[in-house]
Amino acid sequence: MTSPADTQQRIIDAASELMHSRSYADVGVAAICEQAGVQKGSFYHFFPSKQDLTLAVLDGFSLRMKEALIDKAFADDIPPLARLDRLADLLYRFQAQLHQQTGRVLGCPFGNLATELATQDEPIRKKVDLIFAHLQTHIGQVLQASVETGALSDIDVDATAQAMLAYSEGVMMLAKTRNDPAILRDLLPAMAHIRIPAR
Amino acid sequence: MTSPADTQQRIIDAASELMHSRSYADVGVAAICEQAGVQKGSFYHFFPSKQDLTLAVLDGFSLRMKEALIDKAFADDIPPLARLDRLADLLYRFQAQLHQQTGRVLGCPFGNLATELATQDEPIRKKVDLIFAHLQTHIGQVLQASVETGALSDIDVDATAQAMLAYSEGVMMLAKTRNDPAILRDLLPAMAHIRIPAR
Repeated sequence: MTSPADTQQRIIDAASELMHSRSYADVGVAAICEQAGVQKGSFYHFFPSKQDLTLAVLDGFSLRMKEALIDKAFADDIPPLARLDRLADLLYRFQAQLHQQTGRVLGCPFGNLATELATQDEPIRKKVDLIFAHLQTHIGQVLQASVETGALSDIDVDATAQAMLAYSEGVMMLAKTRNDPAILRDLLPAMAHIRIPAR
Repeated sequence: MTSPADTQQRIIDAASELMHSRSYADVGVAAICEQAGVQKGSFYHFFPSKQDLTLAVLDGFSLRMKEALIDKAFADDIPPLARLDRLADLLYRFQAQLHQQTGRVLGCPFGNLATELATQDEPIRKKVDLIFAHLQTHIGQVLQASVETGALSDIDVDATAQAMLAYSEGVMMLAKTRNDPAILRDLLPAMAHIRIPAR
């Protein structure tokens, strides 16, 4: 028997996969319902609007990012700066795996949705902004720990964390535009070497 | 009297502005015709499909990028590496001016369209890829000149040019997501300091 929570999750999973591989606008309620195997009435029961659904999709991606990326990359079994190299490697592997499955570099689900919708949908823009801020905080903690041990000096920690986040997003966008996962392999390791000097 | 070329250009200009400030999918033929002050029949005479129009929009943005960005940034009145700082400054000013006009950081028109459409529209993906390759070539020429004068050494010129392009795109994406042009001012100057070591 299918519980309401199962149905809701199937809708979110279908929407996540479709929006990531296509775009927000290109994915309609009918396609989501078909992929999830649910009726339209059921869809609107859980998600009165596409915005509601998209906010739930972002929460789902955020949870998966925590489990698959943040918890693994930032685990304290290796020195702080080495965790940034691990983050770059995990980002590459995630995109390469999706490329192998779909034949396409899909890019960052957060960056994709923000780029498409930031000027048009304020709740979605703010949600991605919060998710980015969360990732930036983790990067900043690694940098701060490295400043405290003397491994790094004379950097603006917040700005450098922001620059590293921006670089990783830009590399994913470029790899998507070229549909070439090798770009991620070749360019992402430089993320850990970006520095914004202290003012 | 309005010539056909004027009408065609008005359609391209309207579509460029609307797509840049919103998205590809959010801008319909009706809105473009209204903004351009032309009839729908006239639109379809010049552009049988939205893809045709979007390719023309990309050509138009590319020409404007050449005039407003590439020709100015890469003029040889200053040393090669200083031209990268000028590129960063021009990118910031372009986005800051649009933010002042619209209240929004609009991001890169090429990056926006590629992010939204790369997995769905191969001609559009390929067109943006070519435009990015062109910009990357200009950055690479500056780096190569710096290697030849000894100002730079031990870098992979092509990969470094690609990384600088990716970084600028990522900073524009992040500034759009946060709707904060100060991010461009603070982060873009670091573009010129990114290095991918020679293998």
